[in-house]
Amino acid sequence: MKKDFTRRDFIKAGSLAGLGLAFAPAMGFSNPFQTKKVRIALIGVGLRGQNHLQNLLQRNDVEVPAMCDTDQGMLDMAVEMTTKAGFAKPALYTGSDFAYKDLLARQDIDGVIISTPWLWHPIMAVDTMKAGKYAGVEVSAANTIEDCWDMVNASEQTGMPCMILENVCYRRDVMAILNMVKQGMFGELVHCQCGYEHDLREVLFNNGTQPYGGGVEFGAKGYSEARWRTEHYLKRNGDVYPTHGIGPIANYLDINHGNRFVSLTSTSTKAVGLNDYIVKNGGPDHPNAKLKWKMGDVVTTTISTANGESIIVIHDTSLPRPYSLGFRVQGTKGLWMNDGNQIYIEGTSPAHQWEPSKPYIQKYDHPLWKRYQDQAEGTGHGGMDFFVLNAFVESVKRKIQPPLDVYDAAAWSVITPLSEQSIASGGEPQDFPDFTRGRWINRQPSFGMSDEF
Amino acid sequence: MKKDFTRRDFIKAGSLAGLGLAFAPAMGFSNPFQTKKVRIALIGVGLRGQNHLQNLLQRNDVEVPAMCDTDQGMLDMAVEMTTKAGFAKPALYTGSDFAYKDLLARQDIDGVIISTPWLWHPIMAVDTMKAGKYAGVEVSAANTIEDCWDMVNASEQTGMPCMILENVCYRRDVMAILNMVKQGMFGELVHCQCGYEHDLREVLFNNGTQPYGGGVEFGAKGYSEARWRTEHYLKRNGDVYPTHGIGPIANYLDINHGNRFVSLTSTSTKAVGLNDYIVKNGGPDHPNAKLKWKMGDVVTTTISTANGESIIVIHDTSLPRPYSLGFRVQGTKGLWMNDGNQIYIEGTSPAHQWEPSKPYIQKYDHPLWKRYQDQAEGTGHGGMDFFVLNAFVESVKRKIQPPLDVYDAAAWSVITPLSEQSIASGGEPQDFPDFTRGRWINRQPSFGMSDEF
Repeated sequence: MKKDFTRRDFIKAGSLAGLGLAFAPAMGFSNPFQTKKVRIALIGVGLRGQNHLQNLLQRNDVEVPAMCDTDQGMLDMAVEMTTKAGFAKPALYTGSDFAYKDLLARQDIDGVIISTPWLWHPIMAVDTMKAGKYAGVEVSAANTIEDCWDMVNASEQTGMPCMILENVCYRRDVMAILNMVKQGMFGELVHCQCGYEHDLREVLFNNGTQPYGGGVEFGAKGYSEARWRTEHYLKRNGDVYPTHGIGPIANYLDINHGNRFVSLTSTSTKAVGLNDYIVKNGGPDHPNAKLKWKMGDVVTTTISTANGESIIVIHDTSLPRPYSLGFRVQGTKGLWMNDGNQIYIEGTSPAHQWEPSKPYIQKYDHPLWKRYQDQAEGTGHGGMDFFVLNAFVESVKRKIQPPLDVYDAAAWSVITPLSEQSIASGGEPQDFPDFTRGRWINRQPSFGMSDEF
Repeated sequence: MKKDFTRRDFIKAGSLAGLGLAFAPAMGFSNPFQTKKVRIALIGVGLRGQNHLQNLLQRNDVEVPAMCDTDQGMLDMAVEMTTKAGFAKPALYTGSDFAYKDLLARQDIDGVIISTPWLWHPIMAVDTMKAGKYAGVEVSAANTIEDCWDMVNASEQTGMPCMILENVCYRRDVMAILNMVKQGMFGELVHCQCGYEHDLREVLFNNGTQPYGGGVEFGAKGYSEARWRTEHYLKRNGDVYPTHGIGPIANYLDINHGNRFVSLTSTSTKAVGLNDYIVKNGGPDHPNAKLKWKMGDVVTTTISTANGESIIVIHDTSLPRPYSLGFRVQGTKGLWMNDGNQIYIEGTSPAHQWEPSKPYIQKYDHPLWKRYQDQAEGTGHGGMDFFVLNAFVESVKRKIQPPLDVYDAAAWSVITPLSEQSIASGGEPQDFPDFTRGRWINRQPSFGMSDEF
């Protein structure tokens, strides 16, 4: 208990003085971990885990002592990547769903990146923190309200941080807009929009041997994400994937840092897209053509915040469409719209006319991107993956709270069960738990505050 | 009563056989009214009423026997327009809020166009129908749930139609998309979006002598719309102007014609835009800078339909921004987005990529626009005003139900009080009344079905 208490106090100090620590190196702060490599293990080395691994292997400040997966094929691929990169062959954990517990029992691990199917995220994150290690958990972090509390409680009780690895927070345009928001260019923020509008039909169905398309199988007959993600569409109706959209918006609106989500309502459409796809691609006699999908093709959620803003969040993944996260950021001085890449700033833009957003995005490029653009290039998802991993590794290295923490993981992920409840009750508003237990009132912003990480 | 009954039966027959009558001329149907001019009076000849008047005066099939307004200046302008166009000087009704009743008592009027402040719309529409005349009522048509029922009941009891003069239904791109919807190019529709996103700050405030801007006055010290519209922002919180957005979407989704609105939830932001504008333009010491505005700057409403679609409707009029009605029409084969003018049709568009919508809008130009484009050009609001007035006049002339009727007026306008109730109750879902009393199940679509009107 003494050890946990000490560690917790340290982390809490880091949290309270987050800004000071973030800028610490510039102020001559000496970190004993900076000369020692940090040891990052991976639970889940499927295609997403392999992305993270690839980026870890490009760093000279990390070791990868261990990894875990139940899929031997994925594990083989990950080991080959690791040794090819000149890293020592990691210890492997496999053979059962709970093999990861043996990995967590090791003493030579500082942080763990969790890239497993959604239902495992909160369980593994909690176990990671209880094992005294930093948890880096893929999105969405949790599935139920209790999951979210479990993660928050585990972090508070163990003193170990849990970072939600929401890469879109680091998208270059998203960070440039954050820069503009912080400079007050949109005035007082009033309304935001976002969503996950991504035609996933070829992710949800494949032929069992390739990750994307080629068939209408899923579950045991599918491959990669189709193995586990698709079943959520069969059994649940809600926004099951809110964080790519809400993460950036939460940063703009200082959620958990002077503001918080208060309530939401959700509305679902009928579910016709997946059946349409199966019939078109597998024929009307395919057994999957008889399935009744529960998840509406478009789920619309509207969130109210303590500071009086509203946010529309859309989940739209089973209809044909180009990819969009549908961002809109609107205040008393203007607005940015991701769709159409349009911006309007009163007094700067021609009256009542859109301008292309690109010159603004370039002009207000975030200091973090300016500093690391060369390293970020060539990494996954347009560089976002470099930054999110870098933030995790740097936080582990410096033993500070990461810029996205367990309260963010909880507040963003809880949209899923709340949206399910709202839809199930015909649109009744649902209150957000206050995972910070009131501390949102005076917590200071921690994301994107410098060019450090 | 006998007279009313006969007229009502005739209209009902027109309604039941709406399609037949719409195509009647092509089938050799002889209409006794076609050789006689129809007599259209105007209640309200402010700036909007003068738009309609201007378009009436360009027609050779109408007379304008009478007009009414409480504002002598507006009345003078309207009379001058009328006589300059070579029409006889109309009888004028003014001097009291109820002078319009004397106009309605005349026997030489077939239809009345009502372009007055919102609160007068339902009262005047009901009185018009009770006087045995076609009512053409400007948007929004009603303010309360009871207003909507009053209009429906008046129409059913008198047999007189009430057309909601929603011009955006006739916007060229909106009708081209209707054409594409009816041809199934978007597949089965699933989700739509729309709104009234229009920076009205210079409409809501002026200097009392010009209609747009130049000061921060409203009410008794304002001019034109600022005289009456602005007070709604002070006293109400809801979507007070839903029809420009919802009208076109209702036509796409066959609302009241095989489908209906079932329920909605509404969410409001804080109200900061108007105060910000007053302080900037009138100074912090202007008396209006002390007002507490009730209407949130952005009101988001999500509607569910009987056929399982959802519709997002936004009211956003007190912040700086370019104009947009924010249309999105999405189905199992693709989607159109007004913002960015983008379209995606599966199998036609390059995979996962937007195309510009313009070539589609041109290719699927609605037959009505093809036929009347020369006449429509130069009329108000890009030609829309020509079409909406034409539909009203042609319906009066042929003694048939107009393509947008009292059920449309009620179902679209009732969004306002329902959104107010939802916001006031913290987002509770509100059920739509079924103004068709169940007849939506088998009523046939009536809007944009031909190149007639």
